[in-house]
Amino acid sequence: MKGREVSFRETEITGGFWKERQDRFRSVTIDAVYDRFEETGRFEALKGGWKEGMPGKPHIFWDSDAAKWIEGAAYFLQKKRDEKLEARVDELIARLEKEQCADGYLNTYFTSVEPEARFTRQTEHELYCAGHLAEAAIAYAQATGKTKLLEITERYLTLIDRVFRVEHTASFDVPGHEEIELALFRLYEYTGKECWKTLAEYFLNERGCGTRETTYPGVGLEYMQSHLPVRRQREAVGHCVRALYLYSAMADMARADGDKEMEEACRALFADITGRKMAITGGVGSTYLGEAFTFAYDLPEYTAYNETCASIALAMFCRRMWLLDADGKYADCAERAIYNTVLSGISLSGDHFFYENPLAADPERNRFSESRGEQQRERLPILERVRVFDCSCCPPNLLRMVGSIADYMYSISGNTVYAHCYMEGNTTLEVEGKQIGLEQRTAYPYGGTVAIRVTAGGTFTMALHIPGWAGNTKVTVNKKTVSGTLCRGYFYLEREWKTGDELELVLPMQPRVVEANPRAVHLCGRAAVQCGPLVFCAEKADSDDWVLRDVRIRENAEFERDWMELAGIKIPVLKTVGQVRAERSELYTETMPERKEIPLELIPYFAWANRGVRDMTVWLLVS
Amino acid sequence: MKGREVSFRETEITGGFWKERQDRFRSVTIDAVYDRFEETGRFEALKGGWKEGMPGKPHIFWDSDAAKWIEGAAYFLQKKRDEKLEARVDELIARLEKEQCADGYLNTYFTSVEPEARFTRQTEHELYCAGHLAEAAIAYAQATGKTKLLEITERYLTLIDRVFRVEHTASFDVPGHEEIELALFRLYEYTGKECWKTLAEYFLNERGCGTRETTYPGVGLEYMQSHLPVRRQREAVGHCVRALYLYSAMADMARADGDKEMEEACRALFADITGRKMAITGGVGSTYLGEAFTFAYDLPEYTAYNETCASIALAMFCRRMWLLDADGKYADCAERAIYNTVLSGISLSGDHFFYENPLAADPERNRFSESRGEQQRERLPILERVRVFDCSCCPPNLLRMVGSIADYMYSISGNTVYAHCYMEGNTTLEVEGKQIGLEQRTAYPYGGTVAIRVTAGGTFTMALHIPGWAGNTKVTVNKKTVSGTLCRGYFYLEREWKTGDELELVLPMQPRVVEANPRAVHLCGRAAVQCGPLVFCAEKADSDDWVLRDVRIRENAEFERDWMELAGIKIPVLKTVGQVRAERSELYTETMPERKEIPLELIPYFAWANRGVRDMTVWLLVS
Repeated sequence: MKGREVSFRETEITGGFWKERQDRFRSVTIDAVYDRFEETGRFEALKGGWKEGMPGKPHIFWDSDAAKWIEGAAYFLQKKRDEKLEARVDELIARLEKEQCADGYLNTYFTSVEPEARFTRQTEHELYCAGHLAEAAIAYAQATGKTKLLEITERYLTLIDRVFRVEHTASFDVPGHEEIELALFRLYEYTGKECWKTLAEYFLNERGCGTRETTYPGVGLEYMQSHLPVRRQREAVGHCVRALYLYSAMADMARADGDKEMEEACRALFADITGRKMAITGGVGSTYLGEAFTFAYDLPEYTAYNETCASIALAMFCRRMWLLDADGKYADCAERAIYNTVLSGISLSGDHFFYENPLAADPERNRFSESRGEQQRERLPILERVRVFDCSCCPPNLLRMVGSIADYMYSISGNTVYAHCYMEGNTTLEVEGKQIGLEQRTAYPYGGTVAIRVTAGGTFTMALHIPGWAGNTKVTVNKKTVSGTLCRGYFYLEREWKTGDELELVLPMQPRVVEANPRAVHLCGRAAVQCGPLVFCAEKADSDDWVLRDVRIRENAEFERDWMELAGIKIPVLKTVGQVRAERSELYTETMPERKEIPLELIPYFAWANRGVRDMTVWLLVS
Repeated sequence: MKGREVSFRETEITGGFWKERQDRFRSVTIDAVYDRFEETGRFEALKGGWKEGMPGKPHIFWDSDAAKWIEGAAYFLQKKRDEKLEARVDELIARLEKEQCADGYLNTYFTSVEPEARFTRQTEHELYCAGHLAEAAIAYAQATGKTKLLEITERYLTLIDRVFRVEHTASFDVPGHEEIELALFRLYEYTGKECWKTLAEYFLNERGCGTRETTYPGVGLEYMQSHLPVRRQREAVGHCVRALYLYSAMADMARADGDKEMEEACRALFADITGRKMAITGGVGSTYLGEAFTFAYDLPEYTAYNETCASIALAMFCRRMWLLDADGKYADCAERAIYNTVLSGISLSGDHFFYENPLAADPERNRFSESRGEQQRERLPILERVRVFDCSCCPPNLLRMVGSIADYMYSISGNTVYAHCYMEGNTTLEVEGKQIGLEQRTAYPYGGTVAIRVTAGGTFTMALHIPGWAGNTKVTVNKKTVSGTLCRGYFYLEREWKTGDELELVLPMQPRVVEANPRAVHLCGRAAVQCGPLVFCAEKADSDDWVLRDVRIRENAEFERDWMELAGIKIPVLKTVGQVRAERSELYTETMPERKEIPLELIPYFAWANRGVRDMTVWLLVS
């Protein structure tokens, strides 16, 4: 089966978890990211004209920051036009238009700072920025009908195509940071122009084959996945965001061309990531050294990098894979990434961000490290979200992700409608030429009941994702239990759906105590608590007189549900009993079996670090 | 009480654990260290005359390497003269004599490489090298009666005294790397010359008080314990070897002068180290960043630095503290350091060395790191001992330590003879003017029976160290149980000891399952096995089909004793049963209570990494 997407443009998010999140993004995050980018000179830089000695020197990836903000804003404009917001976008586009060179070249860093170095630096994000411009251009054109950015970008891409693919006059053959490949596939799908697919495939086919590939000094070619031709890659290596943008484009190509070799590579890479290299929170990148994948089962806690953007990219890869392959593991993985690491990347208040999302936090370790001389500091993730980073890729990436989250709801293959990630929204989709309407109502991921009402009927197969963590699941149509076919994570129901039919799925939402593979040596002896797709964590208040990492829960622990409010948002709490050892003064003592019980509250991982800096752990001792 | 040392010179090691070790050092290690130092140009450099462009550029601490080798060789010569070995030492001393400047200055690095920079670089080990020369000079004079090195060194120290203490014409006030202070106290005790004590005390009193203290860029003054005047220091900070050489000298001064403030500082520093900052193996220095102490209860496993020299220095500090304070905790700590981390620093074969002694080893992690580009490597301890290091301080330090190990047996205070660390040997000591003879026979640390026969009697109190880990201990005299006073880790027996009296102490040697303080977050959920002063560890052979870090033992595990031979040395083995989880393919699964039992063999930590590179762990899961 080769599926096709159902765009978020076809869905109106009407309530529930994502409505609340999108409302906060609309009211807070769009402006918060804009203001920080304005303050830090990112938007000013688009005016060009920077000269040595002036402040506000453009940075090599600032164009992509602006582009991603535009793309994110466009997704919200898609649902609700906003004059002020559009004026801001139009102003940025006007700056880009003015900055574009006569031959189409458009990169504010190279044009202002190193005009002679254009297309000579494989490492420096030149094509990555171009890719993000293309994605922004498509989104803004779709949302507003305004095509100026699209025209600018296509002019630039025409130059890139000539220089790289036709004339080979650049100093390198493929991007040092992948992204443009998947953007070109989007542009091909949007414009129908074959040339963009040709260029995307040129970049994919050349990777790992050329003799001109170089990366940073002291960094291997694995860093940018140029160690092997892409079809021969089986292990996820190197910089995670680079890797996952590449794998996404590989999946696009596999689908566009029916390229089986490419599909096999994608499957193997997915299996390597999800079977050996992914945190339970869907975070990837076990080390800050190269922001990279490491080796199988290397899943540290305090030092896990787990970049927000990497988990966004992982979800993007999953969404492409489920179009290739009807297997629920892709939606499982997308939800793992989105509901845990991606959302951990932003405060509940909507204006503070994490770049790294570790699995445990020890404020004392951070404080000690910060107190030392700069040559003696341990490199640790920060424990409090900040408003902007020097390398601030994650905040606008979150805008894009949350603005278009409904992309993850449905896809279509033949006459089958796949429902992948459940969220509350009304969708219109076309199945074999017929308009179908579906109204989904659910408290997911907090509640397990998903009700889908058919608002415009037709004959089609409904394929409901049954998450890997769900055991027996009940499906009813019009209150009557129905039998269907359960195959690789989807429950297939073929029928003539009448307008007004009510489909209901009830997923079991009891908390689960989960352990990692014994080969994950960092996690031996520990377990995590999940409930639905959410991974929970414990935070320790200063007033607690026990050690968080010493808390032990039982494999068969029982949990009570409750709620708390953080930043005006209701957050579920799982309450249970933990066991801790008694305090003692000695450093080493013979084991003492006595433990005391303490009340333990777990909150969703995404909600951590919203109550100040605290000890945090996802993995608890288990017995 | 202010005690005094009983030097190893008064003891003949006659058998048991240390005889075997000293024999190997005599037959292998002395030459192994010499040959490596010869190969690497360290001894050639003593000839001086190096010029820019020539090979064999002297290094700032090479003089100390030579001095420590001489000192170590001298301790073996003390027990058995050896013409060939003395000829080697004499040749090195002849080179030093020739290299000494007319004004007494003696440092091959500064004289050859930067003569104009003499006494201007606080960080560069100049005074540290001088201190080691002094220790070597004393040892060689005592062993052979040859005093040339002593004369050379005293000339140099006279210059140092003038430049630093009298004229203040150096660019700094106190050593960047402490060592000379304790060496000067030794020289004072050996020569009786007050001037050396005065200089030592000058350096101690000035530390942390001056305005001219500087260290490496980006490194705080804590690194060299110059952040506070020494009497106000309460927390062990900075570079561990620097710290512990300093604390040793502080204890020397406290004893020499009855300086109570200094004694209080020493006690507090000892408490901070042993109560909060010491690995169960007596290793100190939780991080390679500055080879330094970190914060309380920060005791990582794979990345623990635990330098061999730091544990040697810790034992040296303990030996000084027990002269100040009759408390068995000092001998406990000395044994913890010596029997575990210090001896881990050298292969059983006697010619390969560890600088770092981590608590767990994961060869896969090391292999992965080594496979990456140099900018992307994780800094990890090596897992296989090597023959020499660029900074090869530990090998000759081991020579010194093992050659003079009997220093740790006894001390005297008034008419009390303290027996601190048990080993097999015959000792002559003077108690209140009377020669006493003691013959100690024991298989310690493998056996718990210690028999001491009085070979020359007298009236004195025998104070037997009862280790902190020992519960009820039986003491007999001439086979009859005796009662004495147990106070702070010593069993006091006052009597008229007759020649031929047989004193016997039986320490309980059953294995103990030990856990760390709950605040040691890295170690929560884990326990280690100790037997006597030895910490045991598990190593995993490639053929084992389970994950070492997943092995769980019970708090009340039972052990069977056995032996294995490694490098011609019999090593005890503790056999028990461990539980591991079944293999599975999934990365995350709901907890499954089933475990399988596996046979588990534990060997002493000091014997690890003598069977090739293997997974190793000291800390096992416990339930």
